Amino acid sequence: MAERSMRAVVIREFGGPEVLEVREVPRPEPGPWEIRVAVAASGLNRADLLQRRGRYPVPHGSPADIPGLEYAGVVDRVGALVRDWAPGDRAMGLVGGGGYAEAVVVHEREAIPIPEGIDTVAAGALPEAWLTAWDAMVLQADLQAGESVLIHAVGSGVGTAALQIARASGARTLGTSRTPSKLERATALGLEVAIEGGDTDWPARVMDATGGRGVDVVVDLVGGAYVAGDLACVAERGRIVVVGVPAGRETGIDLRRLMSRRASITGTVLRARPLEEKIALAREATRRLVPLMERSGAVPVVERTFPPEQAAEAHRMMESNLNFGTLSIVWG
Amino acid sequence: MAERSMRAVVIREFGGPEVLEVREVPRPEPGPWEIRVAVAASGLNRADLLQRRGRYPVPHGSPADIPGLEYAGVVDRVGALVRDWAPGDRAMGLVGGGGYAEAVVVHEREAIPIPEGIDTVAAGALPEAWLTAWDAMVLQADLQAGESVLIHAVGSGVGTAALQIARASGARTLGTSRTPSKLERATALGLEVAIEGGDTDWPARVMDATGGRGVDVVVDLVGGAYVAGDLACVAERGRIVVVGVPAGRETGIDLRRLMSRRASITGTVLRARPLEEKIALAREATRRLVPLMERSGAVPVVERTFPPEQAAEAHRMMESNLNFGTLSIVWG
Repeated sequence: MAERSMRAVVIREFGGPEVLEVREVPRPEPGPWEIRVAVAASGLNRADLLQRRGRYPVPHGSPADIPGLEYAGVVDRVGALVRDWAPGDRAMGLVGGGGYAEAVVVHEREAIPIPEGIDTVAAGALPEAWLTAWDAMVLQADLQAGESVLIHAVGSGVGTAALQIARASGARTLGTSRTPSKLERATALGLEVAIEGGDTDWPARVMDATGGRGVDVVVDLVGGAYVAGDLACVAERGRIVVVGVPAGRETGIDLRRLMSRRASITGTVLRARPLEEKIALAREATRRLVPLMERSGAVPVVERTFPPEQAAEAHRMMESNLNFGTLSIVWG
Repeated sequence: MAERSMRAVVIREFGGPEVLEVREVPRPEPGPWEIRVAVAASGLNRADLLQRRGRYPVPHGSPADIPGLEYAGVVDRVGALVRDWAPGDRAMGLVGGGGYAEAVVVHEREAIPIPEGIDTVAAGALPEAWLTAWDAMVLQADLQAGESVLIHAVGSGVGTAALQIARASGARTLGTSRTPSKLERATALGLEVAIEGGDTDWPARVMDATGGRGVDVVVDLVGGAYVAGDLACVAERGRIVVVGVPAGRETGIDLRRLMSRRASITGTVLRARPLEEKIALAREATRRLVPLMERSGAVPVVERTFPPEQAAEAHRMMESNLNFGTLSIVWG
């Protein structure tokens, strides 16, 4: 009967971290075009905290009571029509929910091979951060070799991913964090210009560091007044991409500055995208991001892993905002 | 000696419309790569009003005391290396300044042929409005056939140009104006959904008119709080382009809305662009915009023309904001 059930971390009722519990649930079966992945590790994301509190709408078709937006593991069963995967292949990817489980079922074209040289458990918290960073910075902001990029919250999971992708792509990196120790660790990962982001003079420091020209791209994981600051230190034809707004959803912007810089501000979110876009992103990442990671020796920065029974503690650590890099749940 | 001098409208000193006067100035000679155009008409633009008051920086190499950002006329002399133009050709285009004159000299690749079917005098106020509209709506916002576009200040020179380009390109058109008579005239030009823009419920009307989906592109010639409104009625992956900010340079924006819509806000300005970009725009417009205008029977909407001696009156009319379409100075 082990085949028919599996363990998952379930939300007992909406509330604090203590509402998470490990429970036996039915093990999903792949449809004809689907693969099932035996999950080695399930990454944590801020959206999981919102979902636990009942403040995140779960996409149609995803389990409402099992959080988790990403996974990495080994394919253990494939549907009759699947061509690209076989049992034993290492796979990772995004899901709309249900990632905190021993197995996930996904369309075969949504899964991404785990880059060679990256451990399967370490890959568990890789897809959301790296795909978010790569999609925002490369596909949307069109960062080019030789350009410069400013990354806010450079010590976060998305920030450290953006930093490594930018470096591997030949771009100059500037980054902010309110936590000096995170800046030190980002510098060890290759950050070239480290700027404390707590006060309001960081745009002036960015201008200084770029000889008054400003940065070509901003990856903004902070939001609020940071976006107004981005506009003050962006180069002509600069591209600002807003990926998160923990500092606030509202900001004032100077439209004349936007015009004279000929700059753009773009908002983005991965989770709400329709299937065809998620597949397109997975295929493009397989084609370009995975080889880039393999060639550049990318390091998914894992802060700590937890057994499923300690999911509540993992959520508490994420809520504290003290982690540098990602957290994940590991299935033994 | 007529060859050595020409008439121009000159700013005597910074101030009101009365500081404009007609004066004899040296007639420019084309360099080896340049053409000289005997100007039939010189279009008026809002920037001319700012320049007259000393509040618009004149680009390097343009005359400081002769306003005018556009011209149309007939080539009367070409430099020794010019290949694409011959005396007698009808030409139009943008200049950094000095357009209010009987002759302008431009690099041969900056000039654009006047579309067949459009009168040379009517073309005088065409380049700035049509290139601005086309660049913003098509090249930057990437408006596609089958999409919808909202045009603010649809009765202005840029607005009526955007309207006609959008219709000729197979897009659905929505437009706002604070002046009901301008909406009527825009409707006669083909505007499909006319919305009074004075109050604050226009975003709701746009949502109604699009079945709750929102518009794919916004061409915003107004700025200020309109941009926050744009974000309230833009479709998923919608593109907002800010082309002017007469209603104010500051606005608050909802970054979470920007993210969930995956929308972008881009600022643009033509005048400050470097030569290579102006040439690229002129070549692309020659290749695509001119044929589109010829095929679709485009109508440059000219409100009124003035002899150079009445330049002050022309400025007064532009300042009153009552004109539907463009104003220009005609050289007899």
